[in-house]
Amino acid sequence: MADARGERYELYYWPTIQGRGEFVRLAFEEAGVPYVDVGRMPEDQGGGEDAVMRALEEKMRGPRPFALPALVVGEFVLSQTAAILHWLAPRIGLAPDDEDGRAWALELQLTIADAVTEVHDSHHPIASGLYYEDQRPEARRRSQDVLKRRLPKFLAHFESALRENPAGSDHLVGDRLTYVDLSLFQFLSGLDYAFPRAMKHLASRVPLSVAVQRRVAARPRIAAYLASPRRIPFNQDGIFRHYPELDEAAH
Amino acid sequence: MADARGERYELYYWPTIQGRGEFVRLAFEEAGVPYVDVGRMPEDQGGGEDAVMRALEEKMRGPRPFALPALVVGEFVLSQTAAILHWLAPRIGLAPDDEDGRAWALELQLTIADAVTEVHDSHHPIASGLYYEDQRPEARRRSQDVLKRRLPKFLAHFESALRENPAGSDHLVGDRLTYVDLSLFQFLSGLDYAFPRAMKHLASRVPLSVAVQRRVAARPRIAAYLASPRRIPFNQDGIFRHYPELDEAAH
Repeated sequence: MADARGERYELYYWPTIQGRGEFVRLAFEEAGVPYVDVGRMPEDQGGGEDAVMRALEEKMRGPRPFALPALVVGEFVLSQTAAILHWLAPRIGLAPDDEDGRAWALELQLTIADAVTEVHDSHHPIASGLYYEDQRPEARRRSQDVLKRRLPKFLAHFESALRENPAGSDHLVGDRLTYVDLSLFQFLSGLDYAFPRAMKHLASRVPLSVAVQRRVAARPRIAAYLASPRRIPFNQDGIFRHYPELDEAAH
Repeated sequence: MADARGERYELYYWPTIQGRGEFVRLAFEEAGVPYVDVGRMPEDQGGGEDAVMRALEEKMRGPRPFALPALVVGEFVLSQTAAILHWLAPRIGLAPDDEDGRAWALELQLTIADAVTEVHDSHHPIASGLYYEDQRPEARRRSQDVLKRRLPKFLAHFESALRENPAGSDHLVGDRLTYVDLSLFQFLSGLDYAFPRAMKHLASRVPLSVAVQRRVAARPRIAAYLASPRRIPFNQDGIFRHYPELDEAAH
């Protein structure tokens, strides 16, 4: 499907990780809207890790994005995951209908983004440009704080957003699925991968959130996507990484 | 001035720091739009550090914000600084007119927000709930990375957004002042306070950004605000803190 501008949707993101691009991939997949995941194309079509930023620079006018993901629709280029979703969701049927709801969805997506950054920094507290192995003692200290203090606070927040949604507790905003429900699924799934031991305990306290996670995973288009080769497995290069010693740190 | 809903604007934020609330205060001040800075009212009107979150909880229905600032307009409550500005700016004359421009403004504001978080973490890399004194060696290591690698990248990005703005290099988006210009002013001013030595060098590389900073500071309403007691001075409790040993770390 093309945008009203008559152009196709192109996602520019690293081809080997879920990362922040996965929040955008999930929206396209749930909507059933075709998109080109440029980094995963053959190299002569702009694919590959080295080529994706270069392909984007060649395509666009104006400043290059500070970071990927970037969405390209014709000559329109937009980066920052939450900005992309806020712009894209109304076009593909995944935004609340009313302006207040769209503002709340953006607020929640930004809080998920903050939580994602803190999870990333749990294994990279000193510098994202250094290896994990160069910041292990610091990562252990930060992970303790993330698992004992920060994640419980974030998870309780999303749970209370579900519990107090006046339209019902099946969705974060309004009475039908929006992109932030997909993002909550992705966030919880990443935590399950990174911190299986800690999450056994933490997940039991947020039943409404876990129910959203399960319902999203069972939606036909999402289930088909998760079972397909398009879904890159979680791995040790992404945001959510499983280092057993960090998962243990809270105990 | 009241919103179209006929309600007044209330900002809920900590009364003793600029922090993330300052980006919202600057927008109200530049627009000349009255707002109630609730945390700075007398205690019997909800003011004071302890009272501000309690006052907000009493006022609102639904889940409490994950963090402040929060904007309240009648029964509408919104948190997350970038979400607040994206919602508020079109109502007070500080947003781009067109939808593409609004998306780019949100993108840039989110990149400023990311940079602000990294500056915060330069003095609190392990845990925001611990004192700086409990994470000094780690802060020194992280500050080196922030000053040598991350800040140059962020500053170059904003400079290139100005340089490549097709409507001219006086503003980040379009051909007139928007809230992201105010936010760039605030970001650079915070860096000048926190890292005077590093910024002497870094600022010389981003003349267009420094020019925006100076022009914003000279705007009549902003100049009056900065000279008034409403502008809380930078201090060692906020996001931007001056620890000379961290400013030196890059040299």
